[in-house]
Amino acid sequence: MSIIRTIANDLTAIRERRPLVHSITNYVVMNVTANATLCIGALPIMAHADEEVEELVVVAGALVLNIGTLEPVWVDAMELAGKRANELGIPVILDPVGAGTTKLRIESSKRLLQSLDISLVRGNLGEVASLAGVASEVRGVESISASANADEIAQQFASVYGCTVAITGPVDIISDGRRTATIANGDVMLSRVVGTGCMCDVVVAAFASVQPDPLTAAVGGLTAFGIAGELAAHISGERPGTFAAEFMNALYALDEEAIMARAKVSLAEA
Amino acid sequence: MSIIRTIANDLTAIRERRPLVHSITNYVVMNVTANATLCIGALPIMAHADEEVEELVVVAGALVLNIGTLEPVWVDAMELAGKRANELGIPVILDPVGAGTTKLRIESSKRLLQSLDISLVRGNLGEVASLAGVASEVRGVESISASANADEIAQQFASVYGCTVAITGPVDIISDGRRTATIANGDVMLSRVVGTGCMCDVVVAAFASVQPDPLTAAVGGLTAFGIAGELAAHISGERPGTFAAEFMNALYALDEEAIMARAKVSLAEA
Amino acid sequence: MSIIRTIANDLTAIRERRPLVHSITNYVVMNVTANATLCIGALPIMAHADEEVEELVVVAGALVLNIGTLEPVWVDAMELAGKRANELGIPVILDPVGAGTTKLRIESSKRLLQSLDISLVRGNLGEVASLAGVASEVRGVESISASANADEIAQQFASVYGCTVAITGPVDIISDGRRTATIANGDVMLSRVVGTGCMCDVVVAAFASVQPDPLTAAVGGLTAFGIAGELAAHISGERPGTFAAEFMNALYALDEEAIMARAKVSLAEA
Repeated sequence: MSIIRTIANDLTAIRERRPLVHSITNYVVMNVTANATLCIGALPIMAHADEEVEELVVVAGALVLNIGTLEPVWVDAMELAGKRANELGIPVILDPVGAGTTKLRIESSKRLLQSLDISLVRGNLGEVASLAGVASEVRGVESISASANADEIAQQFASVYGCTVAITGPVDIISDGRRTATIANGDVMLSRVVGTGCMCDVVVAAFASVQPDPLTAAVGGLTAFGIAGELAAHISGERPGTFAAEFMNALYALDEEAIMARAKVSLAEA
Repeated sequence: MSIIRTIANDLTAIRERRPLVHSITNYVVMNVTANATLCIGALPIMAHADEEVEELVVVAGALVLNIGTLEPVWVDAMELAGKRANELGIPVILDPVGAGTTKLRIESSKRLLQSLDISLVRGNLGEVASLAGVASEVRGVESISASANADEIAQQFASVYGCTVAITGPVDIISDGRRTATIANGDVMLSRVVGTGCMCDVVVAAFASVQPDPLTAAVGGLTAFGIAGELAAHISGERPGTFAAEFMNALYALDEEAIMARAKVSLAEA
Repeated sequence: MSIIRTIANDLTAIRERRPLVHSITNYVVMNVTANATLCIGALPIMAHADEEVEELVVVAGALVLNIGTLEPVWVDAMELAGKRANELGIPVILDPVGAGTTKLRIESSKRLLQSLDISLVRGNLGEVASLAGVASEVRGVESISASANADEIAQQFASVYGCTVAITGPVDIISDGRRTATIANGDVMLSRVVGTGCMCDVVVAAFASVQPDPLTAAVGGLTAFGIAGELAAHISGERPGTFAAEFMNALYALDEEAIMARAKVSLAEA
């Protein structure tokens, strides 16, 4: 079965099983990522208190850890939830927002990567480069450039940390060290709305809750995401407020047919 | 005067008096519930610091306590604000989000129910069933099923806690132990957007700030809410991003005529 | 060069330089202010942890401090970030949300005004009047009336605190003690959506990061903001949900031509 056929099937599986996606994420995006979770067909739950995260994650299909508006106490909760998820075989997605900009962010990301068995790291080029130890320029939460190409950085990251990584950008690169996939879906309007990267996280998490192979789950989530972006931009044009609403509409309406017709995925083995 | 006529009058009273609704609520919905408060004609205020909640609540027409992204320190603030509201006769609405999923949530809900004089609890079937001590299945923040019907659960809850309760769902059930109302307004699209339950809380709170009878206030808020949902869905169809915006438009445009023409309320005394 | 020509040039400078605007702001508006930052052409970063704010603010073009959902620990972070910004000559914008309603808010605002070199305070009439020591009526976060007119209050504030102040309302008043500007742009729909005041803060901050004169930056941001409101309301009419999306569209599409054609600014020297 082709990977695109698998993605289409996984989308249907999400809509049938309605997995819970537990997010411990940042304040800026909580509402939009919860809506994206719902639109792709999963159920969002946002909870971050030390006192309950281990109890809640038990029913989740996937766990998202996103350090966007980081506080050390939240990292403690992420670690508690992540350890419990690991015991139960629930996939854990880490978004190291802004890694490379401050010590707190790089250390928190590394702490989570070392203490947990992370299924997938999703970030921009600068964030992933920083964690992989490659020189790069990060500006706030925006990645500017890096001294190596994205392919190499992804492969180096995967080999250093032993987990799958997705670098999102105009072309998304996903590597598990052995296989590398690229996705050419998406639209520049996705960079005109806040929190689209964080919405990727939850869409990928929804796929990971029905698809055991992390690379296939990441490819699925990012392809679905990119196609929804294309369809939304087709309606909105260069109007970011309209695009934000149309993106939710497109994610909700996405079906196997759109995946099969529009996916631009290539997969190579090292 | 019929209850529907009263609801229509109360809507006009909200728009004339512009009561303040003080919410101590969860991060996910703060923006949308503040907008819903404004659209129904009240003024939102969101503040949760121990140091100021007692001072702020004094000017409020109603207080909303919502435990969606719960932390114990927020429950302390809820208790402080609630006690002050009780002293002043300001109605307090409690939304026990996710009660039944974790110990923290059930204990926090019970603590607030025991230490405060709550006017109204609004929740889904699973949340209310859990607090009423009825076996039920809750999945994250979504209610799945319960071993008794909603009517019985509502009545049991009202008799256990001595306060009015509203169980929202396809048909809303409101009971104060003596009277039971049902509301058949609403649209399935309300379940396709995050935070609609929490938006109910603030709309009900706006009604409670002009209507002393908690059951009538709850019926008013939920009827207004449901009708706005119907009108919005009529425009948006199955597009959740569009629905979210149209819902605010509909709530803002809602008038006595729409209430009188569309309300599907029935009221029975035990 | 006329101030309107300068505003138009500054807008283009923002789009070319893409300055980072670091916001330490309230939960209710984080998403919409981040989107407004992006739409005006700057890059948003939201971070509030004591452990990293001094490190992050270094790369910012401007820093926004907004006390909307205040906690004392956040004020500590604001002070740390603000002191570092002052050392580096990065402009600091303070929004004293709800000053006048509680002791915590008035004291926190004064603490920041005393410990930091604030470039601009932006608030409504009641908030600024409270801080200036003028009797006023504030209702929650809404300003009702004051015992002096806005011009006098703005001038008194500027002379007491030695910083530029912008009082926003139907007509905006900006004073640095020596010069007073008024802006007659805007639309009543801006008061029908939550967080528009806070969105002003970040738009003004974007202007401040390319324009060293605080009064000119404030006039630029508020004029751009008001014009975007007019253009959005022209499309949305009295539909607040639609207006919110159209406002982002308008802010994104704003250009020098619209500024030159629509700005209603007057400037007087004392």
